[in-house]
Amino acid sequence: MEAAQIRNEVVAKAEQAREAARLLASLPTRVKDKALLAMADALEERQQFVLQANAADVRRAQDKGLGAAFVDRLLLSEKRIAEMAAGLRDVAALPDPVGEVVAGWRRPNGLEIRQVRVPLGVIGIIYESRPNVTVDAAGLCLKAGNAVLLRGGSEAIESNTALVRVIAQAAGRAGVPEGAIRLIETTDRAAAEAMMRLNEYVDVLIPRGGAGLIQAVVATATVPVIETGVGVCHVFVDESADLDMAEAIVVNAKCQRPGVCNAMETLLVHKALAAEFLPRVVQSLISQGVEIRACERTRRRLHDLEVAEATEDDWRAEYLALVLAVRLVDDLDQAVEHIAAYGSGHSEAIVTRDFDNARTFCDRVDAAAVYVNASTRFTDGGQFGLGAEIGISTQKLHARGPMGLRDLTSTKFVIFGDGQLRS
Amino acid sequence: MEAAQIRNEVVAKAEQAREAARLLASLPTRVKDKALLAMADALEERQQFVLQANAADVRRAQDKGLGAAFVDRLLLSEKRIAEMAAGLRDVAALPDPVGEVVAGWRRPNGLEIRQVRVPLGVIGIIYESRPNVTVDAAGLCLKAGNAVLLRGGSEAIESNTALVRVIAQAAGRAGVPEGAIRLIETTDRAAAEAMMRLNEYVDVLIPRGGAGLIQAVVATATVPVIETGVGVCHVFVDESADLDMAEAIVVNAKCQRPGVCNAMETLLVHKALAAEFLPRVVQSLISQGVEIRACERTRRRLHDLEVAEATEDDWRAEYLALVLAVRLVDDLDQAVEHIAAYGSGHSEAIVTRDFDNARTFCDRVDAAAVYVNASTRFTDGGQFGLGAEIGISTQKLHARGPMGLRDLTSTKFVIFGDGQLRS
Repeated sequence: MEAAQIRNEVVAKAEQAREAARLLASLPTRVKDKALLAMADALEERQQFVLQANAADVRRAQDKGLGAAFVDRLLLSEKRIAEMAAGLRDVAALPDPVGEVVAGWRRPNGLEIRQVRVPLGVIGIIYESRPNVTVDAAGLCLKAGNAVLLRGGSEAIESNTALVRVIAQAAGRAGVPEGAIRLIETTDRAAAEAMMRLNEYVDVLIPRGGAGLIQAVVATATVPVIETGVGVCHVFVDESADLDMAEAIVVNAKCQRPGVCNAMETLLVHKALAAEFLPRVVQSLISQGVEIRACERTRRRLHDLEVAEATEDDWRAEYLALVLAVRLVDDLDQAVEHIAAYGSGHSEAIVTRDFDNARTFCDRVDAAAVYVNASTRFTDGGQFGLGAEIGISTQKLHARGPMGLRDLTSTKFVIFGDGQLRS
Repeated sequence: MEAAQIRNEVVAKAEQAREAARLLASLPTRVKDKALLAMADALEERQQFVLQANAADVRRAQDKGLGAAFVDRLLLSEKRIAEMAAGLRDVAALPDPVGEVVAGWRRPNGLEIRQVRVPLGVIGIIYESRPNVTVDAAGLCLKAGNAVLLRGGSEAIESNTALVRVIAQAAGRAGVPEGAIRLIETTDRAAAEAMMRLNEYVDVLIPRGGAGLIQAVVATATVPVIETGVGVCHVFVDESADLDMAEAIVVNAKCQRPGVCNAMETLLVHKALAAEFLPRVVQSLISQGVEIRACERTRRRLHDLEVAEATEDDWRAEYLALVLAVRLVDDLDQAVEHIAAYGSGHSEAIVTRDFDNARTFCDRVDAAAVYVNASTRFTDGGQFGLGAEIGISTQKLHARGPMGLRDLTSTKFVIFGDGQLRS
């Protein structure tokens, strides 16, 4: 397809989404909730249709020789479809953020000012090969009154097309305006690039995927972007830590689910714990299958263990795997400096019994989530009690940390007067 | 200067700002307030130094033949310096937004979660020829705990250099870290472009100026941008309006200060008011020196008045002058459609006595500020009671409408536990 044609498809869908967004802004909660439940039912009723489309994607991925992990992310099953449906029902049960009066006051001249929560408008989601993002994102955007423009990876195109057909039709029958859920079906990169520059139609882009995807979107987009997900997370075990607690937190933060953004990637240990705690925790991690890459001081302490040397790249690495960088630090200051230099501003933890050190760590570490005596793995909308999340923002604008329904809204000022003039 | 050298200057200053931002985040309120007062005093004490520098800029602008309006924006005087100093003292008196606990709760597993207000970090301000922006922005950024990287127009470079020297020195003596207030002194466009792409050092860019500047920043920047200021604002006079009130609001919204973003640019009048109200309000506007450009229906009604025909460009125009586009509309729906098609999402007003029409207008018009029976001219941080403002956001992400100190902050989650693990 030619560039102009590709752009035309994207613009046409974005226009439909924009138009739908205007109607969605005042769609009653009960219509949105009815639609979410209908979407869930439709997914379950038409699961064979979806699974067949998915099988075609999976076959294509296997033929291309894409790895087992890739195919697993792509693969749908009855269980995964049931999970998507359950997710939509959960979202239906959450309170509607639209219409909330965030603040309100009366001015001396009698003007009544209210700041009211409204949808963002049109949200663009750019993602990779997980088809569940299609359904999760559409559900959250709809509940917050937004139209959604979806652009998934080319490997999942059959699955995404089938999923959007099913949920958009169900939503439409329940009274959601045409155009509220739109998939860019052209898998050409030019389509994604066109979408990233449609400032007239798209209010915000949320990329969901690896660091490469997110950086590409940030570099290309003129539409505002919310960066999500890259997590180079640290646990710092302070001199005063309860060592049993520290070991449990370290193992949990690294091993409970290593492939996700809130898993620990670097362990920082106070030098006072080099003799006793350090060998113990490293042994414990190795017994869980973790590969250790350590600083020179750590390696000297662990001479009887086979531990590779950490390079500069290791301090920056988001392994997303059972690999861990380990460094001995002189004190809290050095730990904070290390995190400032190498952290991605996602989730950072200290294990300590010292009140001042806990406060200093929380004050000085600049990240979306800062923990005292808990695993970094809790950075998650569900774990925080926010309900379903659209992603975890690692930027500071608009939203930071797990983003729930409120983060998919904006506000407007509504001002009532009786003829006030400015003098 | 070569591109690499220019980039080096910008990176060096951005690094200093980043370093300062880390210290500023936990700087006590009393130190920030002391610094703001010291900056105000220093401006007044050293006003001759500032005025001399400004005189050089003004001479250069006059030599270049830049117009009187331009020179007026550039010109400083004892009065304007006193106003800048008063602005800093006002900011010192505002509450410190940093440290506010926005929300907090306890999870069933005992985790205590708090969402705490923190500075954004490093804020880049890109602006045109008004030197007062230098001082206003520096004051607001400092109070909210941010470092500021300033990039003003080349025409004001002497003034800005002098102002930053005075205020940065005063701030430093009061205990503000070196690097907290930095001016990019290279006036080459490449310097601004380098700054717009320093995602590693700069957390947000706020352009302040005309539509051209703002669009250039949006198109070039990879750092997140808050768009400010473009205002194509409408007043819709509904069939049921109190006509005296409507006339007063229309004249105020157009004439009280036509050169600013919250002034009305297009008047929409319900067709039922074509015979009586329309000629009356147009007469009143013309008597105030307003040039009218009207739709065909309006012109037919006003055949005895010399009124030019409005073109498509007029509906889109932000005149910032005593020029007004006027259109008769069939009903509320057509008014809302017109605003959706041509408005910039800044400030929109309806004058009506009808309860349903007031609600419908507020619901359906998508703008930062929506008014019933008041002038659009109130969209302003001071008028809203938010204190000094850094600008008026016309985008939906992060902040919308007048931006006060809170809008110069982010949040972080601080989580206390006693060994919680994720299962």
